[in-house]
Amino acid sequence: MNKSDENSKLPIIIDCDPGQDDALMLFLALNAPELDVLGVVACGGNVPLARTELNCRILVEMAGRVDVPVFAGCEGPMVEQLFTAEYLHGETGIDGIDFFEPSLPKNEKHGVDFIIETLRSAENEEITLVPTGPLTNIAMAMRKAPEIIPKIKQIVLMGGACFEGGNVTPSAEFNIYVDPHAADVVMRCGRPIVMFGLDVTHQVMTDPKIVADIRALGNKVAHASAGMLDFFGQYDAAKYSEQGGPLHDPCTIAWLLEPEMFVLKHCHVTIETSSKLTRGHTAVDFWGVTGNQPNVAWAHKVDRARFFALLTQRLAQY
Amino acid sequence: MNKSDENSKLPIIIDCDPGQDDALMLFLALNAPELDVLGVVACGGNVPLARTELNCRILVEMAGRVDVPVFAGCEGPMVEQLFTAEYLHGETGIDGIDFFEPSLPKNEKHGVDFIIETLRSAENEEITLVPTGPLTNIAMAMRKAPEIIPKIKQIVLMGGACFEGGNVTPSAEFNIYVDPHAADVVMRCGRPIVMFGLDVTHQVMTDPKIVADIRALGNKVAHASAGMLDFFGQYDAAKYSEQGGPLHDPCTIAWLLEPEMFVLKHCHVTIETSSKLTRGHTAVDFWGVTGNQPNVAWAHKVDRARFFALLTQRLAQY
Amino acid sequence: MNKSDENSKLPIIIDCDPGQDDALMLFLALNAPELDVLGVVACGGNVPLARTELNCRILVEMAGRVDVPVFAGCEGPMVEQLFTAEYLHGETGIDGIDFFEPSLPKNEKHGVDFIIETLRSAENEEITLVPTGPLTNIAMAMRKAPEIIPKIKQIVLMGGACFEGGNVTPSAEFNIYVDPHAADVVMRCGRPIVMFGLDVTHQVMTDPKIVADIRALGNKVAHASAGMLDFFGQYDAAKYSEQGGPLHDPCTIAWLLEPEMFVLKHCHVTIETSSKLTRGHTAVDFWGVTGNQPNVAWAHKVDRARFFALLTQRLAQY
Amino acid sequence: MNKSDENSKLPIIIDCDPGQDDALMLFLALNAPELDVLGVVACGGNVPLARTELNCRILVEMAGRVDVPVFAGCEGPMVEQLFTAEYLHGETGIDGIDFFEPSLPKNEKHGVDFIIETLRSAENEEITLVPTGPLTNIAMAMRKAPEIIPKIKQIVLMGGACFEGGNVTPSAEFNIYVDPHAADVVMRCGRPIVMFGLDVTHQVMTDPKIVADIRALGNKVAHASAGMLDFFGQYDAAKYSEQGGPLHDPCTIAWLLEPEMFVLKHCHVTIETSSKLTRGHTAVDFWGVTGNQPNVAWAHKVDRARFFALLTQRLAQY
Repeated sequence: MNKSDENSKLPIIIDCDPGQDDALMLFLALNAPELDVLGVVACGGNVPLARTELNCRILVEMAGRVDVPVFAGCEGPMVEQLFTAEYLHGETGIDGIDFFEPSLPKNEKHGVDFIIETLRSAENEEITLVPTGPLTNIAMAMRKAPEIIPKIKQIVLMGGACFEGGNVTPSAEFNIYVDPHAADVVMRCGRPIVMFGLDVTHQVMTDPKIVADIRALGNKVAHASAGMLDFFGQYDAAKYSEQGGPLHDPCTIAWLLEPEMFVLKHCHVTIETSSKLTRGHTAVDFWGVTGNQPNVAWAHKVDRARFFALLTQRLAQY
Repeated sequence: MNKSDENSKLPIIIDCDPGQDDALMLFLALNAPELDVLGVVACGGNVPLARTELNCRILVEMAGRVDVPVFAGCEGPMVEQLFTAEYLHGETGIDGIDFFEPSLPKNEKHGVDFIIETLRSAENEEITLVPTGPLTNIAMAMRKAPEIIPKIKQIVLMGGACFEGGNVTPSAEFNIYVDPHAADVVMRCGRPIVMFGLDVTHQVMTDPKIVADIRALGNKVAHASAGMLDFFGQYDAAKYSEQGGPLHDPCTIAWLLEPEMFVLKHCHVTIETSSKLTRGHTAVDFWGVTGNQPNVAWAHKVDRARFFALLTQRLAQY
Repeated sequence: MNKSDENSKLPIIIDCDPGQDDALMLFLALNAPELDVLGVVACGGNVPLARTELNCRILVEMAGRVDVPVFAGCEGPMVEQLFTAEYLHGETGIDGIDFFEPSLPKNEKHGVDFIIETLRSAENEEITLVPTGPLTNIAMAMRKAPEIIPKIKQIVLMGGACFEGGNVTPSAEFNIYVDPHAADVVMRCGRPIVMFGLDVTHQVMTDPKIVADIRALGNKVAHASAGMLDFFGQYDAAKYSEQGGPLHDPCTIAWLLEPEMFVLKHCHVTIETSSKLTRGHTAVDFWGVTGNQPNVAWAHKVDRARFFALLTQRLAQY
Repeated sequence: MNKSDENSKLPIIIDCDPGQDDALMLFLALNAPELDVLGVVACGGNVPLARTELNCRILVEMAGRVDVPVFAGCEGPMVEQLFTAEYLHGETGIDGIDFFEPSLPKNEKHGVDFIIETLRSAENEEITLVPTGPLTNIAMAMRKAPEIIPKIKQIVLMGGACFEGGNVTPSAEFNIYVDPHAADVVMRCGRPIVMFGLDVTHQVMTDPKIVADIRALGNKVAHASAGMLDFFGQYDAAKYSEQGGPLHDPCTIAWLLEPEMFVLKHCHVTIETSSKLTRGHTAVDFWGVTGNQPNVAWAHKVDRARFFALLTQRLAQY
């Protein structure tokens, strides 16, 4: 790939906590010719950091992208204690794959510093951040080095809920619940935010046919994806009588690749940080009743067929 | 009507803040042979108490039920300052009717005391409370005279939201927002609660055909109803590009008359009282993630056609 | 006593939850020629309502004032659950006296209604309220019948703390902690408030000599007082290595009788109602840092010798 | 100084926001033979970071300790927006000295990373942290690299209030108010904390005689100290009718040098982070009413004469 090709790619930093749906998000990103993945930062979230960092290396290696550096960020939230979700993701976070010890060694640099240094050496509005776990690393970077904020082109994140209620509590979605203070810092940062919450991620539920189609692709990445989707779908199947699980995190990359499949509305979003009951609730002013200036492009509709077509087609290219 | 007929009727106390949708609720209740309306208590809410009390007398008189006593309850919430909604209901609260000075005089007895005394002289689990405004009067009665609580058969109320977000703020529905402390007291009272929130009331939006059908009924009550529905539909039409407005309050009486048209789920509901941002949010544990015992039967589906058929049919009987 | 004498007396309503220190407050008030005690209302607080109401009748009868009516108010707080203090006051609330069954029967009228009716029939700014327990009854009356508020001359209450920390939690004094919402309503009522918190009540600790002097007075009321002070002093003696206990509630009546013995400062006081940690904390703006208008005359110094001289002298007159 | 001398010194990291009282703290620390000041980290607080970092370099140079590295930490709090106190400290933060451009250049390394790296390379329980401003840098270091926490010997900090009320609001002391979340993180870190709040720092008010004595010492540092104390005393003189100002921050170093002059009590301390009214309030369980395990040694008494004797004597040695 020559320099000019490279220049036409969108430079992104991914921050995630795999998580089966994070894994699919990584697979979607790592072979996308449209994207230049500058690095992957792990955070504590779905499972503890030691596990998410290891998972990132496994997934990057599985995708054949050992050139993409992986970093460990923060173990837990800025203020609260870490709350994890093994009930949903299994002990490893990516139950459903065949594990292996990655050849990629652990990186010494802290994920927060990778974010800071990458942004510092970038142009204004150059870098896209794609966080699909708790927003701890992003907020820590912003607070440690606020001069990086203008370098951010946009933050494309998975988190929150408006018309869907919560998943981890009646009022809050997991990522925002785990570190509400980090989310609050990010919401107020002044840069463009595109947010994929449960309203839209619950429109992209897998089903047995989709998983079978992916498995049938035959390559190693597709095989691992199908295994994870099988595992991940069990929880929702048992709890909500669904046939599969919601592909939360891949929505972010799907939007970067084919934004037309989503419908977004500019809204003001505020994070609840003071109440124990509603901790991490995203107050999405969808109808404009508060008069506050929008700070978020809120995704609320997605073309499900197109989403899974994209996913399958991209996984086929591995 | 002989004694035995009277005995087979369900004795209810209505507490409301008309409000066009409260008005329809009253019309539905006041000629229902299934119900024995023991009294109507007004509270401050959609418009101030002086207005809601006057509106109750007008509506009761319009329904030909001057035998039903009307009482003024509390002017404002237990703790917070009163917040009203003239932007939605007009200055009078029941804009859309032809006003007249009711012949029914104001009642001296305080609405809270009417509730207390009626319950005190009842059997255990005898009386159904139907509050369709802020829950101030109900909670004040419970706290002034807790011995009345076992006399309550059930509380059938309009308020809250789960999958619909809020209407007065992004996170809260009007009735609960106005007096969250009263709602909190009611939620924890230990008696059966049936709750009609925005999830279900937004499924019974009026439309021009329905209003026309009601107007065509030709009687005075139907005429007033159509006038109010015209007025009431304007706000949602302008704001949400709907063709009409949601008939919140009549859901309560509709359920008492034809419960089969609704789908309910037993859930734990907690009220947010501590946060300014999410004040009055109803944390409805629809998926049972908290492990708390259900305290509410939460209405989440309604057969719209049947609802409007009932409404039209009952209005026809005036 | 002729009418003109009667007219020169200050008409007061006492609202209390005896409590040994409430008992001393009642003894101080009930033979004061300066005061016209219109009634005594009991609230749930130090011990449950059934006990405080009984205690009020016992104490009024002991003071020879069976002409003063006693009423039961609310059992518990407006919103929170009742929290009582038997650890301090003993099971009866007035441990230390010889109990007897009072001849005075229970009054049917609710204490909140006694307050409302008395104020309704008074002139503007005529009646002084003296609450020395949780402020539930006062706030319930204000919210049930806001038209009574202008009839209040002043509210002279025991509650809160500024420079003394809390007693029931690190940040809150008992009376305000028990019903913070009621306290919040009272603080915002717009009428003059004189507030005796721990800052000043901890300056009037009893000691063995004072108790001995009171016992030596020889009359029945003094004997009961000494017995209660002996009991009441034990807790602070054990906990704080003090020789006696703080005479919280009598400060209110002492100020009505001899205001010169206290130093007051006009401050803005706000009640914490939203945080579990600091529930019932009184944010007393003693140094005027908030810029908010004072709503309270905050007592912060008292002449201890004079206080106990007054107490002993008045008890001697029984 | 040979290695064994060096080894007998207590290794400390200072984190401060000068601030005239921070300046005196630095002077006290920087020529103390008992202490090994490994570095000074500046945080945003009394004045913005650009100013506090410059002030640290000026003060270190004035103290003749250009061997002690100075670092800029975080500009503002973890979650909240920065609130500064120029009303008290003047525009520069150290008004009262003759300014000069320090020869010491700015350090590239971030203060949070200096803390992390120093602790990482230390033994367990080796390093004493002395924060006298908002606790942002300490908490950011703990959350970025939790593995450093066992390396902390103790945290000796200025902040909070129990019996003194607040200074920046009625309920909170400035340092804790500015970054309550950081304070919350520090309080829960599990390492020994010694805390000098307003209860004790208001016992070490300067007066004109003390300032004159310091000025009379004749050396450059003493001269600057006297100038700053003159300036710093004006605010309290005007507001509280005091003759001088409270020497908050030097209490920390004074305790390290002569702990016997202070009286401490082990208490549980919790930080208010959820309420706007009481934000940053330190709930100090001085009387043990909560049953929570103590996490802080709370200073509540100091021998004022001895404190100022120490200060004068040490300033004389410059």
